[in-house]
Amino acid sequence: MKKIRLGMIGGGEGSFIGAVHRKAAALDGHYELVCGAFSSDPSNSRRSGELLNLAPERVYGSYTELLLTEASLPAGQRMQAVAIVTPNHLHAGPVLLALQHGFHVIVDKPLTLSLLQAKQIASALQDSSCKLAVTHTYAGYPMIKEARHRVASGQFGRIRKIFIEYPQGWLSTALENQQHKQASWRTDPTLAGAGAVGDIGTHAAHLAEYVSGLNITDVCAELNSIVPGRQVDDDACALLHFEGGASGVLIATQVAAGEENNVRLRVYGELGGLEWSHQDNNALHIKMTGQPEQIYRSGSSGLSAAAVLATRLPAGHPEGFIEAFANIYSAFALDLLGNASKDHDYPGIRDGVRGMAFIEAMVRSSTSAQKWTAIEV
Amino acid sequence: MKKIRLGMIGGGEGSFIGAVHRKAAALDGHYELVCGAFSSDPSNSRRSGELLNLAPERVYGSYTELLLTEASLPAGQRMQAVAIVTPNHLHAGPVLLALQHGFHVIVDKPLTLSLLQAKQIASALQDSSCKLAVTHTYAGYPMIKEARHRVASGQFGRIRKIFIEYPQGWLSTALENQQHKQASWRTDPTLAGAGAVGDIGTHAAHLAEYVSGLNITDVCAELNSIVPGRQVDDDACALLHFEGGASGVLIATQVAAGEENNVRLRVYGELGGLEWSHQDNNALHIKMTGQPEQIYRSGSSGLSAAAVLATRLPAGHPEGFIEAFANIYSAFALDLLGNASKDHDYPGIRDGVRGMAFIEAMVRSSTSAQKWTAIEV
Amino acid sequence: MKKIRLGMIGGGEGSFIGAVHRKAAALDGHYELVCGAFSSDPSNSRRSGELLNLAPERVYGSYTELLLTEASLPAGQRMQAVAIVTPNHLHAGPVLLALQHGFHVIVDKPLTLSLLQAKQIASALQDSSCKLAVTHTYAGYPMIKEARHRVASGQFGRIRKIFIEYPQGWLSTALENQQHKQASWRTDPTLAGAGAVGDIGTHAAHLAEYVSGLNITDVCAELNSIVPGRQVDDDACALLHFEGGASGVLIATQVAAGEENNVRLRVYGELGGLEWSHQDNNALHIKMTGQPEQIYRSGSSGLSAAAVLATRLPAGHPEGFIEAFANIYSAFALDLLGNASKDHDYPGIRDGVRGMAFIEAMVRSSTSAQKWTAIEV
Amino acid sequence: MKKIRLGMIGGGEGSFIGAVHRKAAALDGHYELVCGAFSSDPSNSRRSGELLNLAPERVYGSYTELLLTEASLPAGQRMQAVAIVTPNHLHAGPVLLALQHGFHVIVDKPLTLSLLQAKQIASALQDSSCKLAVTHTYAGYPMIKEARHRVASGQFGRIRKIFIEYPQGWLSTALENQQHKQASWRTDPTLAGAGAVGDIGTHAAHLAEYVSGLNITDVCAELNSIVPGRQVDDDACALLHFEGGASGVLIATQVAAGEENNVRLRVYGELGGLEWSHQDNNALHIKMTGQPEQIYRSGSSGLSAAAVLATRLPAGHPEGFIEAFANIYSAFALDLLGNASKDHDYPGIRDGVRGMAFIEAMVRSSTSAQKWTAIEV
Repeated sequence: MKKIRLGMIGGGEGSFIGAVHRKAAALDGHYELVCGAFSSDPSNSRRSGELLNLAPERVYGSYTELLLTEASLPAGQRMQAVAIVTPNHLHAGPVLLALQHGFHVIVDKPLTLSLLQAKQIASALQDSSCKLAVTHTYAGYPMIKEARHRVASGQFGRIRKIFIEYPQGWLSTALENQQHKQASWRTDPTLAGAGAVGDIGTHAAHLAEYVSGLNITDVCAELNSIVPGRQVDDDACALLHFEGGASGVLIATQVAAGEENNVRLRVYGELGGLEWSHQDNNALHIKMTGQPEQIYRSGSSGLSAAAVLATRLPAGHPEGFIEAFANIYSAFALDLLGNASKDHDYPGIRDGVRGMAFIEAMVRSSTSAQKWTAIEV
Repeated sequence: MKKIRLGMIGGGEGSFIGAVHRKAAALDGHYELVCGAFSSDPSNSRRSGELLNLAPERVYGSYTELLLTEASLPAGQRMQAVAIVTPNHLHAGPVLLALQHGFHVIVDKPLTLSLLQAKQIASALQDSSCKLAVTHTYAGYPMIKEARHRVASGQFGRIRKIFIEYPQGWLSTALENQQHKQASWRTDPTLAGAGAVGDIGTHAAHLAEYVSGLNITDVCAELNSIVPGRQVDDDACALLHFEGGASGVLIATQVAAGEENNVRLRVYGELGGLEWSHQDNNALHIKMTGQPEQIYRSGSSGLSAAAVLATRLPAGHPEGFIEAFANIYSAFALDLLGNASKDHDYPGIRDGVRGMAFIEAMVRSSTSAQKWTAIEV
Repeated sequence: MKKIRLGMIGGGEGSFIGAVHRKAAALDGHYELVCGAFSSDPSNSRRSGELLNLAPERVYGSYTELLLTEASLPAGQRMQAVAIVTPNHLHAGPVLLALQHGFHVIVDKPLTLSLLQAKQIASALQDSSCKLAVTHTYAGYPMIKEARHRVASGQFGRIRKIFIEYPQGWLSTALENQQHKQASWRTDPTLAGAGAVGDIGTHAAHLAEYVSGLNITDVCAELNSIVPGRQVDDDACALLHFEGGASGVLIATQVAAGEENNVRLRVYGELGGLEWSHQDNNALHIKMTGQPEQIYRSGSSGLSAAAVLATRLPAGHPEGFIEAFANIYSAFALDLLGNASKDHDYPGIRDGVRGMAFIEAMVRSSTSAQKWTAIEV
Repeated sequence: MKKIRLGMIGGGEGSFIGAVHRKAAALDGHYELVCGAFSSDPSNSRRSGELLNLAPERVYGSYTELLLTEASLPAGQRMQAVAIVTPNHLHAGPVLLALQHGFHVIVDKPLTLSLLQAKQIASALQDSSCKLAVTHTYAGYPMIKEARHRVASGQFGRIRKIFIEYPQGWLSTALENQQHKQASWRTDPTLAGAGAVGDIGTHAAHLAEYVSGLNITDVCAELNSIVPGRQVDDDACALLHFEGGASGVLIATQVAAGEENNVRLRVYGELGGLEWSHQDNNALHIKMTGQPEQIYRSGSSGLSAAAVLATRLPAGHPEGFIEAFANIYSAFALDLLGNASKDHDYPGIRDGVRGMAFIEAMVRSSTSAQKWTAIEV
């Protein structure tokens, strides 16, 4: 099969997520990186292109230059899809321009700085013949796909309680005052929009909705800026209401000092529950009333098609974050190549728009004295 | 040392917690069970007394009979302390009568059916020369004592976030309709007062306050009666405000189908955090920023006096629930024997009163459209 | 029910296991400690008796005095069973004298200093009307009983592989040179007989045989004295042959620096396997080919009668070492009271004799250049 | 940087390890797959090449054709390194021919069918200007590199005990009779040489030596063919002697029914020990005497340069088997590109030769009545 010609906007030196996107794109052999505008600093962009062994003429100094120049290249040579891995304030512009010129888009989360921008993208996408993926990574884990499958199968009965948490500790001190590139933009409201609620809260909310198959309808949230001087929230906790009467709790905090990135999801229905944690991502714990706890592991027998297709190795051979990311890239590639399947899903525009609606509802709720605030999409 | 002569009210056949109290009292040899009114059913009480090898004349048909008769016995023979292990609605009566007749009291939690009753007990206790313990079991675990010690020592800096959860699944179905004795009284508002919030929510709140050394000041709660037909709450989740600006989340649910009794506490300060879970009660996880996670285990070196005194065995020999319970009994015994020490603490009247104030605030909050409700003691 | 009148030989100040025996005897209310010869040092014995609230006239200065004096007391007052918790070299003498005077015996492991002594005890026991228990503690854990039940039920098919390990680190340095009472006698060949192989190797071998239901037939062992100057082995590893063709590995080492007491057992048959570890003693992991791993926890549903009877608390309430020990005491009590049942088993003379045969075979194998050495009972 | 042009021998449809090699080579962008002889079945080879998007003229029908044809291509186009991922009996031939024609070699383990062949390769390699890597995967895990670093640093003092185990269950039944391609060749002595001892025993032995920095000098082994009719060993257990007086135990079994691939290593020195398990590969447990257990996680602070360089993601983002594999590929690439460093090591010819010597000693020991058999390189 021909590889998809991929370009990248952002992801130069000092980026964390850009390298992840590239490794994810490379892993399964579906993409060939052909061009990039890796930084608004042209020398950074050029050096990044060299390290990536790109043709110098296809390393650009700005996203506009990239999109316009690539659009002018012959069809058989031109970039087909573009990965947008810039800070959040630089999502909407490149996404809209890419769609306008007919490029498929893979964009990091959160989709934009505002729900309004997200809806503009949704509208532009609908008017185009392009496809768009949003890298809500956790939806790429095989055992998360298994969890979603099992909830949908009715194994647990009607869902009653959903607990999702995403504790990090890396922003427990004012790293943004120490020339820490990641910390700097992620705590700058003009670049990041929201803080913890946008950076990791959207991951948490997406994961809860993806696995449960239920939308969050209302939140009762408190957002805090705990580290003195911080300009965005670094801590977001909420009670949740879901469609169909389920309720739950969301914890997304970046000041859980000593914690790494230990996302943890629990979903309980009438008949049993499930538990998944990022630290042990290859396992899914199933607890049915009156039965022993069961641990399903990726690669073993008895799993759904979606989980099987998202796994590369036999049982007992751990896969991880890059593989989960690659599952999104590969599912998107299969869709572009005309081989889409419900067992090869990936987060798209609907997830991106809901993420922005979630962020805005959380922010509204946090400043409200009323208990509940609706999510309005 | 002479053993303390102990009586028991409640704890007959079909009781869960009565046998735990007896084993806890027996474990370290500080008590001798000498009498009891084990059930309001005289034949149940008599059979229970026989199984416990008590003198038949000291097995009573009611708590009144027990307290009045024992009060009339010669000093060297008379019961000295009484364990009250009845359903919640039968706490206040016997406690007040026991105090009136000069008996020390060990009473199960929650202390009473209402904050008002709790305050009456506090007042009666103050007027007496008696002592009173409330069996908030989790405060008896050695690694919880270690956790409290470490927070107090300032190791974590100022505390910022506290997450406490107590998920159970045993009430996921309407067991109260199936002649299940424990389920029946615990879901009957006239016998239990509140449901999950009283039965396990108070444990959770106490644990959070005990370890952090901070009082909960305000709650933003949702209480649900999830199982159809249930007359009390079986699910209680809340956002929390603590003294000094810390905030947190509390989960106490009895409909987490498939879960057993997996209490889990996390406390984070400026410099690091701690984690403890009931399933692995002999371990305390310490996570300091920039350092590897540390696991302290009961019986090993480097622990506080309070943890050491609460441990019976060398490292690697697991202790459990009965031992934690026995730590409360033994600390109370040492206090009665004049050997009280700050490293041998036990929950008392203050904890009991706060527990009732917590329950009432949670209930008020749950029916309020306002976000925050203050705990009023 | 009347309590069994219990005496104790050994277990004075500085003893570890004596206090465990007492707590185990007290926990379930089957025994009343009435007398003791707690130390060969009369003042130690006296002080111990005082702390235990014994009548001064029943605190003895030697085991001979205890056994002869108690034998002369009236039947309704006289000790009925004696717990022998002295160092190994002081097992055989008191056991034989106790049996001669008609006292039931609970004796710590290993049974004696030699297989010859063990056989003498077996013979004396047979000539008496007494019963004898050996405290192979690990056989008292509920989930070990469950494991044994499941192997016997045939769930795993024919057993093929058995891995048992008992790593400790506490003797990684020459503690015996530092006035450490436990280390001193346990590393003195005249008091302890063997070292690691006797102290913990016998526990390991017993556990492997108890769960598998298969005797070890041959060992291929290496015993080491790793710490310079140590006079007994502190490290014992062996390949094992079992009856019926199964094979395995045994690790018993006291120089695994940093380890506590983490016994771990794995048994594999044709169809699946099981795993148990001391650190998580309330869980039993079952791994059947083609199925998810299952975790059974004590107190939950689906367990064997033997496991249920060995559990005091509902699921999710951890029990531990003292409770396992108490299960041996309580099963022995039920046997003495005429209520023996196969689901209330306890290790007895056969286990004690096999333990000594195991030790002697390991020692012989260690000095042999031949690969395999038979266990000869 | 220019990518290294890579060819592949083996790895067509039905192969497990071929795809792993390709993903590992792709992950970090150091290699470009340019040609292959994927199967001795030409149509399988052709289909595989198509799926991999290779130029048809560079998909070959045999390894000889590949090596001779590529050798004849112009320097700027010709393959530079070849990955040999065939069954074991097809290692020596292609490796020797590749070296003869000046191609660098990456070859799966075990290196060959015999120690003699391995020595021939060592000799040919020395006579060439080529480099050779052997994919002992586990040496690629960051926390294994950290473990090796810590042992070498002297943190644990002199090493005393090493326990390595590799339990699998997938060959618990006679899969080789069910058209299972992997099982068929791995249990055929003409294709695989040895069974469990070669397939996973060499991984285990290599890991023990790599981390401890100590060679195994002698083995006392038992090899079993447990599944009826099996023609190779499926179970290999051994006592081990290491240089410098350390001793240990090795377990490599493919009949641990229900187990996946749970490699586990423990190393103990005078002052403490370490533990690593494959199921939780991003963690390294350090247990120093008198200190709490420490858990170091990949990506966190305080790790060695070798561990840091082998990690792609921040702490809390799990990496796995493919990443470990890729670390070998990338270290080899850096060496080929002239950027070798001691912190970017990879297993090479010495490891391959020692692996074969280990296998042959294990086989000799297993049929010997003598306890110990020396490893002779």
